[in-house]
Amino acid sequence: MESVLEYAKAMGKSTGLVVTSQINHATPASYVAHVPQRRMYNEIADSYFDAKIDDQFKVNVMLGGGWQYFIRDDRNLVEEFQQAGYQYIDSYAQLETIDNHNVLGLFADRGLPAALDEGNPDRLKDMVQAAVSRLETNDKGFFLLVEGSQIDWASHANDVASTMAEMDDLHRALLWLETYVSQHPNTLVVVTADHNTGGMTMGERAGGYRWEPAYLRQFSASPRTIAVTHAEQTWDPASLNQQLGFTLTKEEMAVLQPAHKEGAKAFYQAIKQVVDQRTNTGWTTGGHTGVDVPVFAFGQGKEQFIGQMDNTDIAKKLFAMLGRTPENESNKP
Amino acid sequence: MESVLEYAKAMGKSTGLVVTSQINHATPASYVAHVPQRRMYNEIADSYFDAKIDDQFKVNVMLGGGWQYFIRDDRNLVEEFQQAGYQYIDSYAQLETIDNHNVLGLFADRGLPAALDEGNPDRLKDMVQAAVSRLETNDKGFFLLVEGSQIDWASHANDVASTMAEMDDLHRALLWLETYVSQHPNTLVVVTADHNTGGMTMGERAGGYRWEPAYLRQFSASPRTIAVTHAEQTWDPASLNQQLGFTLTKEEMAVLQPAHKEGAKAFYQAIKQVVDQRTNTGWTTGGHTGVDVPVFAFGQGKEQFIGQMDNTDIAKKLFAMLGRTPENESNKP
Repeated sequence: MESVLEYAKAMGKSTGLVVTSQINHATPASYVAHVPQRRMYNEIADSYFDAKIDDQFKVNVMLGGGWQYFIRDDRNLVEEFQQAGYQYIDSYAQLETIDNHNVLGLFADRGLPAALDEGNPDRLKDMVQAAVSRLETNDKGFFLLVEGSQIDWASHANDVASTMAEMDDLHRALLWLETYVSQHPNTLVVVTADHNTGGMTMGERAGGYRWEPAYLRQFSASPRTIAVTHAEQTWDPASLNQQLGFTLTKEEMAVLQPAHKEGAKAFYQAIKQVVDQRTNTGWTTGGHTGVDVPVFAFGQGKEQFIGQMDNTDIAKKLFAMLGRTPENESNKP
Repeated sequence: MESVLEYAKAMGKSTGLVVTSQINHATPASYVAHVPQRRMYNEIADSYFDAKIDDQFKVNVMLGGGWQYFIRDDRNLVEEFQQAGYQYIDSYAQLETIDNHNVLGLFADRGLPAALDEGNPDRLKDMVQAAVSRLETNDKGFFLLVEGSQIDWASHANDVASTMAEMDDLHRALLWLETYVSQHPNTLVVVTADHNTGGMTMGERAGGYRWEPAYLRQFSASPRTIAVTHAEQTWDPASLNQQLGFTLTKEEMAVLQPAHKEGAKAFYQAIKQVVDQRTNTGWTTGGHTGVDVPVFAFGQGKEQFIGQMDNTDIAKKLFAMLGRTPENESNKP
């Protein structure tokens, strides 16, 4: 089955993947790779190099994590990409040095650090901006997939502080894209989710009609990182207050201190419990739910994304806008 | 503050309220009454008769529940409305007999029975159809508020069987309205919720990626009614199976039988627990949440309801479509 990215490449457009997971994780891979199972990470990484469209690489700009899949004992895909003319970068600082239309940027062993563990709140926006600056030089246009990959991960963990930070990561990238589209009105941006995760609600059981996100804004690290570092040292509420950005109550201490003795996992659970209670956040599951997700669009053609639609309709609309018809559908990879 | 219904009446249109709560409950009352507190039910009912616009009653057709508020020791509003020329009906069967432009229809002491406890799955649709048949005779048009009032009530109870039945009640009314609008394309229907209740999700903790609504379709009564009737008699799993529409497992029996001994309230809780597990439904709260709610529209002017908006924008758009401008805004009740 041909992906939208593959069809765009076959039409002569430039293509990109910018994600905060490893670049061969399920969502980006679904645009490029054709393997039986999402966890075949090495095979997916291999196919990013091996599978071509009209003798060209499928993806011009790839930014995200994934050293362990691209630099392996059995194969060094970074070297192969470099020998094939790709610029390789491995730090965010190098994003400003990109001077090649083909770029592989890997910034972590697997997924990028959690947004709350990054020094730069604009890391996704910086990657998107760097990618667009290369892709837009193609007169035939470009297709770019951007994923705020760790919104899902943080929600699987029912970790509202991390969920909101990952959302903010995507939000900052979208703000930049809004400005870009206002200056390049023939560009279309479609924003959606492949599913809801966690069944999170603002307002929770017996908590009153309030939600208190202010408590989520001063974390100096992700709750998971706070839990892991504190579990390795003696009980230190002063440091904990500082990292959480609020002063724990006696009742919250009574939840946290016993959990601290049980190790990082229990302590992480306890921190999440305290933060959920403080913010009045609710969850129904550690998995996905079946609730409808929003679809937003701005730029040229946005009106095609009005109203309810099936998830597969989004691909159909994008294919149609790219010019694919039943007649030329045979143009497959 | 003038309501949309009041402005429509001042413009010479006909007006209606069709709800499954008492007709003086918060939502319908917000279109008509001006009292300090939503629980002032008697004062709200009084104002339906006493407050006029241009010497006319504000609402031409009122259908829902509320005997206890309209027929009181201190005041009989039903008689007053009848003396003022209103047709009064107190059974659904009489909906077909309406031959007056002004109608008061009360079918229950307070709210109507739960949808699952009604014999007629089209009760809301029947009320809407009867109301529209009167209101549409006004050449200047009409404004009708329809509320599937008990979706919220069932969700406060975290009762998924009742929630879905109340949704179906509204759904059937909307299907009829879709047909009506296709035949009267100068009509606009806007559908929304004032808030989410319960944080319900399809798919729940540890339940796998599935939702099983089929188990909700064979209830012969609402879970609350089943609980109350069973609590008054000896443990009778055969009858329970029949009323639920599925055969209880040994594990489900082990949840239900001890709760049955504790009375109706505990038994209702246990039934809901079993149904949530069977269907894999999750909830975060017995109250409201702050998640966004959908806004749907069909008919003339539907394009004004595309995209995200504040809840108050809906009233502003409706006022504007009805012709209210800052200049004539002083036209207040």
